[in-house]
Amino acid sequence: MEEMQTRIAASPEDFAWAAKLLVDFNTEYGDPAPEPQWWARHLARLCDEGTARVVLVGRPGDGVGVVRLRTSTYADELEAYLAELYVVPALRGQGRGTVLLRAIIDDAVAQGATYMDLTTTEEDVAARAVYERFGFDCHEGRGADGPLSFYYEKDL
Amino acid sequence: MEEMQTRIAASPEDFAWAAKLLVDFNTEYGDPAPEPQWWARHLARLCDEGTARVVLVGRPGDGVGVVRLRTSTYADELEAYLAELYVVPALRGQGRGTVLLRAIIDDAVAQGATYMDLTTTEEDVAARAVYERFGFDCHEGRGADGPLSFYYEKDL
Repeated sequence: MEEMQTRIAASPEDFAWAAKLLVDFNTEYGDPAPEPQWWARHLARLCDEGTARVVLVGRPGDGVGVVRLRTSTYADELEAYLAELYVVPALRGQGRGTVLLRAIIDDAVAQGATYMDLTTTEEDVAARAVYERFGFDCHEGRGADGPLSFYYEKDL
Repeated sequence: MEEMQTRIAASPEDFAWAAKLLVDFNTEYGDPAPEPQWWARHLARLCDEGTARVVLVGRPGDGVGVVRLRTSTYADELEAYLAELYVVPALRGQGRGTVLLRAIIDDAVAQGATYMDLTTTEEDVAARAVYERFGFDCHEGRGADGPLSFYYEKDL
């Protein structure tokens, strides 16, 4: 089904649509977002330099994921950070998030990544269920008996 | 006091000592660690290319921090990730962690970073108290009434 097809953002139109979805995402949560035309160019630049990958599901796009790539601190391998994962509200609960995350992980592996991390909140139960189904773990030592791993942030 | 002096790792000796401390850190927690000579060269390489900063406290070093830098997904600004923060066990509780974190943040700001994030576990009460004193927050929206932010990871 076309609506479940994913693609790696490559054209200016792809990046424009990805930026539009990401602005919607931030707006849904009341967060400030960059200006969409600037953001599209910025994402394209990051992808060009090899530090980001943007994946869309549907045409022109009903969901988007953004991964950041860098050399690991611990090995001469790439590590991937899932910075964004979004499906438009009206189309949630139909599997697009799962299809998108599968495509994102497959792409990260194809790029050479051996590790992926992400952050979410305790209340985002639906997203956490998807992540956990994919084998993501939020406990130190990656077992249910390890203490929870918390994510801290600060503006400098 | 010399034992509270910090410096940015710059020489092969600095990176060798940083790697030694980081191996001790991983060993303390039962985690596998890279071979120290390889790790020293790897950290020096990451610092050379501008994606890492390594800070030491004391001579040759009683504590070490590692920050990763990259262009933000959301702005044409640098964001910093605190990958490691370690003080040798016998010298904890005397302020070295605080001095080190202050130096790490000051250095990140000097590099142009406008944001820093990190992960830790719910049981690491001492480290969390230090992070919170510096203004790091682990709640969505960065207020005590926001849901907790969890950190998930997965090997690919």
